[in-house]
Amino acid sequence: MKDDPALYLALVHYPVLNRNGAVIASAVTNLDLHDLARLACTYDLQSCYIVTPLADQQELSRRLIRHWCDGAGRELMTNRAEALRRLVLVDAVADALAAIERRHGQAPLVWATSARPGEAALEPAAARVQLAECGRPGLMLLGTGWGLAPPAMAQADALIAPIAGRNGYNHLSVRCAAAILLDRFFNGRP
Amino acid sequence: MKDDPALYLALVHYPVLNRNGAVIASAVTNLDLHDLARLACTYDLQSCYIVTPLADQQELSRRLIRHWCDGAGRELMTNRAEALRRLVLVDAVADALAAIERRHGQAPLVWATSARPGEAALEPAAARVQLAECGRPGLMLLGTGWGLAPPAMAQADALIAPIAGRNGYNHLSVRCAAAILLDRFFNGRP
Repeated sequence: MKDDPALYLALVHYPVLNRNGAVIASAVTNLDLHDLARLACTYDLQSCYIVTPLADQQELSRRLIRHWCDGAGRELMTNRAEALRRLVLVDAVADALAAIERRHGQAPLVWATSARPGEAALEPAAARVQLAECGRPGLMLLGTGWGLAPPAMAQADALIAPIAGRNGYNHLSVRCAAAILLDRFFNGRP
Repeated sequence: MKDDPALYLALVHYPVLNRNGAVIASAVTNLDLHDLARLACTYDLQSCYIVTPLADQQELSRRLIRHWCDGAGRELMTNRAEALRRLVLVDAVADALAAIERRHGQAPLVWATSARPGEAALEPAAARVQLAECGRPGLMLLGTGWGLAPPAMAQADALIAPIAGRNGYNHLSVRCAAAILLDRFFNGRP
């Protein structure tokens, strides 16, 4: 396991931007939880943090996870439990950082992701190399809504380069963006 | 444009398998249409075919596309129209083949995708090279439900290699699988 980069994801619902650039807490989307859990399982991430401070959204997410991990869904589709048990609900990005630090004995390197080009952004495969070299765990922050708000960006050590399409269109769903970033992180050549 | 591989996607709702291995027509999923359209736009595919013979599912899809391309959605989120107008509803895979052949003057190379390992499967980047070499358009078939049924597999010239995760888990959503396959097709090294 020594050479395995310990990568974590956080799907951030607060603080994120809405279409007008205001800081909001976005609603949790059922399919986001399923898709992110299945991605986390495919790429063997220990946990994917679902970040929301809203009690009702946490309760909704908890019910959904329970349904598939312990309830009727478990019998219906056993592989879904294997995925969804990797989801961990937390109030804030800081709680995800603290949990990873408790587990690994050191704080994670934190990367923000964005659809907008930024300065000094790393390709995901370069981030993997950086992680292997420093021996620390890593956490990639994914924003819902219109993307991570400045306070979430400020918690990151660096920025992951946006997914450049073939014609300038940069409006992928967070589900598809997460899929591409994870695949590039583990399988891309730096 | 000469060197641009003309790739098309088809999201197949019939014939696909259900959990018991029976051939069914699956229901169209709202977020599949959005995510596939946004992917098609990002990777600049001219069209993504939505394959379903069910009249009510076609009508539902048509209403959804109209809402975002011509209705209230157009004002709300202009970039969604740019994506969703790339969706083309067809009754059968054969109709997608015929439409591509009419446009390009030659039939497309057709690849089936599957989460199950198959013989002689191509990596997506190798499929891109093959397309460039033969000068034909290409069509990648994506199955909903439990994957493409044998009659759909039989319409393909070859199989695209499944997305190998890091621990054998092979249950990605079709949305995330499509994202990874397109990214590997256009950006992967053969």
